[in-house]
Amino acid sequence: MRELPNDQLLRKRARQVIPGGMYGHGHAAMLPPNYPQFFERGEGCRITDVDGNEYIDFMCGFGPNLLGMNHPSVEAAAAEQRALGNCFNGPTARMVELAELFVETIAHADWAMFSKNGTDATTACLTIARAATRRRKVLIAHGAYHGAAPWCTPSHKGIVDGDRAHLLEYEYNDLESVEAALEEARDDLAGIVVSPFRHDAFIDQEMPDPEWARALRRICDEREAALILDDVRAGFRLTFGGSWETIGVDPDLSAYSKSIANGYALAAIVGNDRYRDAARSIYTTGSFWYSAVPMAACLATIQAVREEEAIAQMERSGTLLREGLDAQARAHGFALRQTGPVQMPMVLFEDDPDTAKVRGLSAQALERGVYLHPWHNMFVCAAHREDDIRLALERTDDAFAALKREHGTV
Amino acid sequence: MRELPNDQLLRKRARQVIPGGMYGHGHAAMLPPNYPQFFERGEGCRITDVDGNEYIDFMCGFGPNLLGMNHPSVEAAAAEQRALGNCFNGPTARMVELAELFVETIAHADWAMFSKNGTDATTACLTIARAATRRRKVLIAHGAYHGAAPWCTPSHKGIVDGDRAHLLEYEYNDLESVEAALEEARDDLAGIVVSPFRHDAFIDQEMPDPEWARALRRICDEREAALILDDVRAGFRLTFGGSWETIGVDPDLSAYSKSIANGYALAAIVGNDRYRDAARSIYTTGSFWYSAVPMAACLATIQAVREEEAIAQMERSGTLLREGLDAQARAHGFALRQTGPVQMPMVLFEDDPDTAKVRGLSAQALERGVYLHPWHNMFVCAAHREDDIRLALERTDDAFAALKREHGTV
Repeated sequence: MRELPNDQLLRKRARQVIPGGMYGHGHAAMLPPNYPQFFERGEGCRITDVDGNEYIDFMCGFGPNLLGMNHPSVEAAAAEQRALGNCFNGPTARMVELAELFVETIAHADWAMFSKNGTDATTACLTIARAATRRRKVLIAHGAYHGAAPWCTPSHKGIVDGDRAHLLEYEYNDLESVEAALEEARDDLAGIVVSPFRHDAFIDQEMPDPEWARALRRICDEREAALILDDVRAGFRLTFGGSWETIGVDPDLSAYSKSIANGYALAAIVGNDRYRDAARSIYTTGSFWYSAVPMAACLATIQAVREEEAIAQMERSGTLLREGLDAQARAHGFALRQTGPVQMPMVLFEDDPDTAKVRGLSAQALERGVYLHPWHNMFVCAAHREDDIRLALERTDDAFAALKREHGTV
Repeated sequence: MRELPNDQLLRKRARQVIPGGMYGHGHAAMLPPNYPQFFERGEGCRITDVDGNEYIDFMCGFGPNLLGMNHPSVEAAAAEQRALGNCFNGPTARMVELAELFVETIAHADWAMFSKNGTDATTACLTIARAATRRRKVLIAHGAYHGAAPWCTPSHKGIVDGDRAHLLEYEYNDLESVEAALEEARDDLAGIVVSPFRHDAFIDQEMPDPEWARALRRICDEREAALILDDVRAGFRLTFGGSWETIGVDPDLSAYSKSIANGYALAAIVGNDRYRDAARSIYTTGSFWYSAVPMAACLATIQAVREEEAIAQMERSGTLLREGLDAQARAHGFALRQTGPVQMPMVLFEDDPDTAKVRGLSAQALERGVYLHPWHNMFVCAAHREDDIRLALERTDDAFAALKREHGTV
């Protein structure tokens, strides 16, 4: 496999001054060894590592690059705002325009607030639910990712008993497990946090059972608790008006981030009028939360998603990719499990208990200029056009062939 | 007083779509009624509201604008990085360069990590301290602000018992109160969080007693607990190498944010080698934490702070402002209490139990184009040159005269 001398040098330097050389979801340690840790530049759906290798990118920054990197109308809006200024002693008119746009766009939203991280938004949803209900217990799905604050980070290192004292777990799409958690919550239920689909790492993705989703809504109505949709990862990728719009279930509160400003740091909390007073009562803020440039970028992003029909475009590209990979796998004697929405592909292999096959495919594809992820859902963006997908598929066909030479078939 | 028709219109729109019309530290509700809520543009130390009124700004976005808005070398570095790309599947070389620069710059730093909010950084410090010590209790100063997560937000709305289960309070500069908290922590002390000086809102600021600071260091050494300096607000304003450099006390961990990238959203955690393994062990991340543009801006900001001797410049301007205000107050028959470092002015009045005088001065100064804050520490930036301070003082002299007509004197 290729050498990545610049990447190796940077890793060496990083190990001196960054604990473990890197941290969080951008750490390449759990990826096949030929993956680069450091990137140099990008445009649309193409990224180039520090050794000059270009990839068709199916991670899109783990979501943020919804329209592709360096999108003209988003960058123009950001530049225009930057010339005026970014970080003042209060907001600019962009914040009001943006809150109006969220209220207009998201079916269940009567109001919006903005922050920086997805974690800021999910955390605020919990706080608002607790302030509104004056109750403490919150149900979350076992294995779901809702951020990296002490209450939700996947690691238990440095986490103390109090951090998760009032969380109860259920299994996604499993009403019985929800009911068991409700038993435990008794009359202390503040809310239920749910992802629009099950997008846990390492495993098959699972779409929500509409009956189950409606049951969650009914439970929250009966108990006057908050149904909280964590739309940080999927928001604006599946549908325009909130990811449960298509199954007709309105949450009370939703958390957004990642893709809403096409790479600019922004998060949003939206909610309905039942939670307005509670949202007003909590104190949550940050030094850069009113910054105008990301808000201008978000306004332009949402406009472009609508005008360029970005969701339909991602769906077409995602479908082409999924069908292509599936045909290739079969042709080479492999069987794939492709799950979740086509815009957020998860590709795993049948008969791959140690993940050697999926890691092998990813490594071979990477070597040929296609950046896949072997254990996290991927992201198609609107800059993936038919040509990009066809080129990616030419390369993955070679990758499957190489994998077959390496591993044999099912 | 002036009318602010555009501001009023935006406030009205905001009340429809943002709970309470605004939230957090940028909310104008607690300011005198002539303060604008919304800003239009800014440059250097001047900001203009949505009704076209320009102010000499002494809040600097509550800290971020360290060199002044739209600083040429910072904006050039950001633009250069922006052309390459911002948000990838991992970091760019900027992250390594920046960690190296922090390690080189901050005396006690052997490593660095980066996030978005000051709250991200202070929270990570707690988590690292707990991971390192496998203990739970953390001491914080009564009334100190360390962010707006459930464990630290000043409001108790939506906060549950677990969120603060292992926090113990002490009084700033009071060793006895620290010892009482230590008694309570017993053998479960993970760390002590301390601000470089007491910069609580509403009250006189207080510089640290060096003896007391040394006692905190000694206590943490004896108990093998982490001394955590929250340098989010003061970092790079008082001294170049960490705000307790001048009193010779090295913390184990420090949190930075606000000013480090001159308005771009970034935070940093730095620590010494004793806490490196713990820092490596925790899981903390965010969608925009490796974004390269704020890191490029931070590199350029720190370079400019050094090359332009920004700290000395802020000190000169802050001294000129403090002495000028003091002389004016006396000349008009008022007595001020000006506390804290001159670069971060806190101006309160003697004999002002209902804060009418300080609010009156602020309102009068605002009317004349000087943006002061009546109950929060202010921020001088390096773009405040002698001419700006002299012009501001001409205007505050008029403001004192108006205040005297309104309130009489002491």
